[in-house]
Amino acid sequence: MENLIRFGEKFFDELEIAVYRSRDVSASVELNEISIASTRSGAVTVIRGIKDRRLGLAIVDSDEPEKVKGAIEQAAKMAKLNSPDEKWVSLPEPGKYREKPKPNYELREASPNALVEMLVRGMKLAREKDENLVVAGGEGGVSWEERRILNSHGIDVFQEGGAAFFFLEFVGRKGGVVTPGIFDFDARRDLNLDVEGVVERASQRVQWAYNVVPSKNEEVPLIFGPWAIAGLFSYALLPAFSGERLVKETTPLAGKIGEKIASDVITLYDDPFHPLALEPVVADGEGVPTRKNVLIDAGTFKGFVWDNYWAKVHGTESTGNGKRDVRSGGISIGFHSTVIEKGKRPLEDIISEIDRGYLVDGLQGAHSSNQDNGNFAVTANPAFLIEDGEVKGSSVFLIAGNVYELLQQASEVSKEQTVMPFMNTIITPHIKFENVKIAGK
Amino acid sequence: MENLIRFGEKFFDELEIAVYRSRDVSASVELNEISIASTRSGAVTVIRGIKDRRLGLAIVDSDEPEKVKGAIEQAAKMAKLNSPDEKWVSLPEPGKYREKPKPNYELREASPNALVEMLVRGMKLAREKDENLVVAGGEGGVSWEERRILNSHGIDVFQEGGAAFFFLEFVGRKGGVVTPGIFDFDARRDLNLDVEGVVERASQRVQWAYNVVPSKNEEVPLIFGPWAIAGLFSYALLPAFSGERLVKETTPLAGKIGEKIASDVITLYDDPFHPLALEPVVADGEGVPTRKNVLIDAGTFKGFVWDNYWAKVHGTESTGNGKRDVRSGGISIGFHSTVIEKGKRPLEDIISEIDRGYLVDGLQGAHSSNQDNGNFAVTANPAFLIEDGEVKGSSVFLIAGNVYELLQQASEVSKEQTVMPFMNTIITPHIKFENVKIAGK
Repeated sequence: MENLIRFGEKFFDELEIAVYRSRDVSASVELNEISIASTRSGAVTVIRGIKDRRLGLAIVDSDEPEKVKGAIEQAAKMAKLNSPDEKWVSLPEPGKYREKPKPNYELREASPNALVEMLVRGMKLAREKDENLVVAGGEGGVSWEERRILNSHGIDVFQEGGAAFFFLEFVGRKGGVVTPGIFDFDARRDLNLDVEGVVERASQRVQWAYNVVPSKNEEVPLIFGPWAIAGLFSYALLPAFSGERLVKETTPLAGKIGEKIASDVITLYDDPFHPLALEPVVADGEGVPTRKNVLIDAGTFKGFVWDNYWAKVHGTESTGNGKRDVRSGGISIGFHSTVIEKGKRPLEDIISEIDRGYLVDGLQGAHSSNQDNGNFAVTANPAFLIEDGEVKGSSVFLIAGNVYELLQQASEVSKEQTVMPFMNTIITPHIKFENVKIAGK
Repeated sequence: MENLIRFGEKFFDELEIAVYRSRDVSASVELNEISIASTRSGAVTVIRGIKDRRLGLAIVDSDEPEKVKGAIEQAAKMAKLNSPDEKWVSLPEPGKYREKPKPNYELREASPNALVEMLVRGMKLAREKDENLVVAGGEGGVSWEERRILNSHGIDVFQEGGAAFFFLEFVGRKGGVVTPGIFDFDARRDLNLDVEGVVERASQRVQWAYNVVPSKNEEVPLIFGPWAIAGLFSYALLPAFSGERLVKETTPLAGKIGEKIASDVITLYDDPFHPLALEPVVADGEGVPTRKNVLIDAGTFKGFVWDNYWAKVHGTESTGNGKRDVRSGGISIGFHSTVIEKGKRPLEDIISEIDRGYLVDGLQGAHSSNQDNGNFAVTANPAFLIEDGEVKGSSVFLIAGNVYELLQQASEVSKEQTVMPFMNTIITPHIKFENVKIAGK
């Protein structure tokens, strides 16, 4: 690969070669049956070269030197045809990395058979708990990735590792009631996926959901679960921390470093080395060392995150948040493992003190949130009515609000923390918000 | 591969092996610059085996015999764990195929460089036509696929071929006006993509769009363009022709064969051998011979389309409409090349007779259409006001209606026919609908 950097320097002032090798095995469930077992592997190489501030980017799904050379030549032709990017400064310089975590090689060799067995066990357990329950969907998967990032300034970092996930979605049918899809999941860096826990938690919520209660317009405490938090924050909040948005003046957080933007209970940071994180990477997609970046510290906004390009445009340093989209090849500002700090008391205790309120499991429509100001309008479904400290039934209602106002209403976070492996990886406790206006549906 | 069928027969009563090899090259544009050149190739093998009516499905991204054997074993393990599908009859028997079209091997060897050059040429032409025009996006691509379908009943069909596509999306900025994204495209089975035509047509519409006119509530003739027709019909109409939906009682066309469901000008059929079709396949994803299936003949509903499974459940024959999703491995009922028969007069003549109406280029929100009854609510954008036989400006409005009522209002189809290469491949003229109620926005 160093030879290929030398080869590319004939065409470019600077260049970067990123090689990703991956192996993914998975098995899926549809309507109580195993629907497919899948084994996929491959290599992708992305070339980014700059000549006279003109950018060339090429992607080829191979790591063979001859094909990589072909991609370098394509990128060079492209750079010639593009106009100069006057904002371009340079690719990153080498940095100091944290010690790499020891990879779990068991994940590299995983077979779909192990996942099929977990799914079968999960389905059996589910039917034992509740014969009215349909396993509508589910999947078990193991991903392994090896990535090497090199550039002509001397960066050369290799990383490897894997993660496993498991989820089931249940629908209960009893009397005239068909519950909404209720799902639970586990994700971790070994194969000890908590099948029993997934079934236990999801089937508990199906039992609650059999008792459908009407919702009304009211102002009540809401407890958001991990799925609801991940959905809402991914769309309405996290984009606001992007340095690119600061430069482009499309974040409501501009000029607010040091200000209180949330209540004291909210501490939010990005850290690929959190114990529950699924990808403990020492370098980001451009080879810049990763680090813990605090976004909100006990309610106070601490700063933005950056990739190499936008940091240099702004005159600051990359925070190691250059994420590569292996499909498109591009780098954009993103997060590794967004963590919301956990609290001291278990969820059960928090629920037990609520006279009337809701536990919100899922939110629909969060993707339409306005990232420029944090406004959102979502449907809480499934949501569970809490009365006199106990869950009494399930309901559906609307919440229209602003994520920054909601953050000020946060009053407690639970002791339990869960890793949400979908979209952004978000590690979060349950969060209680006071006096939230809801509209019955 | 025949040996692998013999190997699989040790585990299964019947089995199918489908091998897909593909090569895709593409180049993209973002904001007036070439953003990436991409070369991808790969092989995928899908195993479907049945033992005692229990189904096993496995997918592996390789065509190496050892890996295919591994996938057969995985499918066999899965079949053991699944319950019997009492509706299962059998995999397809061999059929008689049409003569295969001669593939264009030039497409197999295509390089992203040719596409980069086309995009650069298109951008240059666009700026020459209108300096206020931004090439917001675009892509050129060439796909090549080789597929072989075998099963234990003797089906063994090999097909190969390719197609190329090209599109550009323009946004005009003039005075205070920013036009909506306006795009045009070409797709064909050779590399003679019509770059000049794409630029000509799209920039013409950008000129129209500079003059923004208000819309109001009224009842007017509308001419739908190919993109609008493809969007609306893909979601609101085409699913209704699925035999699976007939069996499951979720199509509004049940019991209506022979009835008039559209005006006389509408003839709709599926035929992979239409001259403009991009994939002239002689066999579908299960190896069943393809054929021309008429869905609507001069307004009269002629029948449903079927894959092997649902046809046998219903006691009829597959119409060759088993489409394989190469990502998931599964077979479902779909279309090869849906064609709306063209008319006799050019679009220009049809426009010239309209006193007041609109040319609808794009529809937003069609994906939310109700497939069970054909109801839809969409935003027409961009749409162009026609007054006194000429396009006068651009507008945005809402149309809420029912696709079957709309089909009765069709009064003419244009002479020009375009292939829409996205989602379903739809080959369509412009269609004029009379007295459509629109709501100003």
